[in-house]
Amino acid sequence: MEEIDLAIIGSGAAGIGAAVYALRRNLKIKVFEKEAVGGQTAKAVFVENYPGFKKITGLELMQKMRDHLQSLGSDVEEGNGVKKIVKSKNGFELDLDEGEKVFAKTVLLATGTENRHLGLKGEEELYGKGVSYCANCDGPFFKGKKVAVVGGGNSGVTNALYLAEMASKVFLFEFMPNLNCDEIYLPMLEKQKIEVMKNTQIAEVLGKYKVSGVKVKARENGKEKKIDVDGVFFYVGLTPQNSLAKQVGAEIDEKGFVKVDENQMSSVNGFFAAGDITGSLAQTIWAAAEGAKAALAIHDFLRIK
Amino acid sequence: MEEIDLAIIGSGAAGIGAAVYALRRNLKIKVFEKEAVGGQTAKAVFVENYPGFKKITGLELMQKMRDHLQSLGSDVEEGNGVKKIVKSKNGFELDLDEGEKVFAKTVLLATGTENRHLGLKGEEELYGKGVSYCANCDGPFFKGKKVAVVGGGNSGVTNALYLAEMASKVFLFEFMPNLNCDEIYLPMLEKQKIEVMKNTQIAEVLGKYKVSGVKVKARENGKEKKIDVDGVFFYVGLTPQNSLAKQVGAEIDEKGFVKVDENQMSSVNGFFAAGDITGSLAQTIWAAAEGAKAALAIHDFLRIK
Repeated sequence: MEEIDLAIIGSGAAGIGAAVYALRRNLKIKVFEKEAVGGQTAKAVFVENYPGFKKITGLELMQKMRDHLQSLGSDVEEGNGVKKIVKSKNGFELDLDEGEKVFAKTVLLATGTENRHLGLKGEEELYGKGVSYCANCDGPFFKGKKVAVVGGGNSGVTNALYLAEMASKVFLFEFMPNLNCDEIYLPMLEKQKIEVMKNTQIAEVLGKYKVSGVKVKARENGKEKKIDVDGVFFYVGLTPQNSLAKQVGAEIDEKGFVKVDENQMSSVNGFFAAGDITGSLAQTIWAAAEGAKAALAIHDFLRIK
Repeated sequence: MEEIDLAIIGSGAAGIGAAVYALRRNLKIKVFEKEAVGGQTAKAVFVENYPGFKKITGLELMQKMRDHLQSLGSDVEEGNGVKKIVKSKNGFELDLDEGEKVFAKTVLLATGTENRHLGLKGEEELYGKGVSYCANCDGPFFKGKKVAVVGGGNSGVTNALYLAEMASKVFLFEFMPNLNCDEIYLPMLEKQKIEVMKNTQIAEVLGKYKVSGVKVKARENGKEKKIDVDGVFFYVGLTPQNSLAKQVGAEIDEKGFVKVDENQMSSVNGFFAAGDITGSLAQTIWAAAEGAKAALAIHDFLRIK
């Protein structure tokens, strides 16, 4: 079985940040990714708050990070996730999607989060038939159509702005009485004529074979109404991808995030975590920084071990 | 007196990272800088570990961050530091180097660190006459000459490599038995024929009107010897620039770093700190991330206040 110093699981900003730092410390690493490179950042239409890049698409930023990684002689193994982890005395045995096994002295979990599903009536049934969690992926299918965006944080708002460039009409629903996005977006929402409905709960996704509308409820008076849309995009929080952490018995908090110490190590010796999976600031810059910190801590851990 | 939401003191990665985030939250800010933009990062010959940039000079990276800040309608006030801070009931009164006063509801201290001085005989006397703390600034004066670099961490090593491109001979002195730099630099040191002396203490800087050499002591046997050099560059740790924190009475740890909570706030209400001044990971990516985190926390602080 191939033996490595560090298995990094996930290739968002945390995973790649860690890989860059680990390679510079000459650790023998592999980066496993069950899907495509880039994590949540790659799904962002634009990233405008990673210091140093005024405006860049999420995909471009993650491609630059991947280039950085490649320049150090490694790469992400795309489509090759980790199915199973077993802790042994001096490390971890990993079963990979592609069938091989790898022995890693340490593991960095950087699996991040996925956009949360609300579990509404119609939501799962119509997934891929008008229900989406990624405007960047599915937005272009809604050219000239009406869409709803659920969630008034930065993700919801920036994706609503993106969709307004192609959709004929965009509704933005926020559960709370106010949007919680960066204020610079507020005039843009007006300019794009996005219809913002605050204090509004989404109750149901309507449609038989494809989305035909949404049922929403005004939280002030409980009144329900139907709004015709062809698509619904959900940006209502994040679900930590913690199944591998649970497998090895790492402590998880009540929201499902992996608990880590000041060196990014979980409750399991040699099993580290960085980025959104730790429940820290869900920002690309922060995830990259936690990855860097974890890699330096792992280097120390291996040296002392 | 002009009133602003947030005064950011210092324009390294932490200060500018915070400014970018704060401006996106529509805070009224100013960024004060007693010297030139860029903090420690700007002094780095090359930055090769800020994820997304394979290799960039420190100055270029900080210029990109400044461009980012400018694109949001603000800028760094270079050469206009903060002389004095007085806490009042709802904020802070700042006396600026240029004479004005500003009232800021909150302050973010991002003054970072300066390279530590050892206080050796000859060190202060010959500062600017062969003694330097910035190879990037002063290196070109030593073309074809012999130089010593003190300190075998990443800073010392990368600066020794840089100096080797122009100096006729480079000595690298490390106090400990091993270098503590990223391992990828080790073969480069050999290739550049840098003479590495480990377990070696620097005892004195020699020279009357300018540096003529250094006296070093082998820690193994206490033997001293003189080595002829024309320049000495010190990279032996960092001294936190905490005088303003002391002025407002913020708690400082035993090494001089400002203590902060999980929101980057110091023990003084409304007085925050981010980056190297907090004693956290002295890395550009980490400083930028702490700046971002502080700005979001400050935005919340002002909203709740």
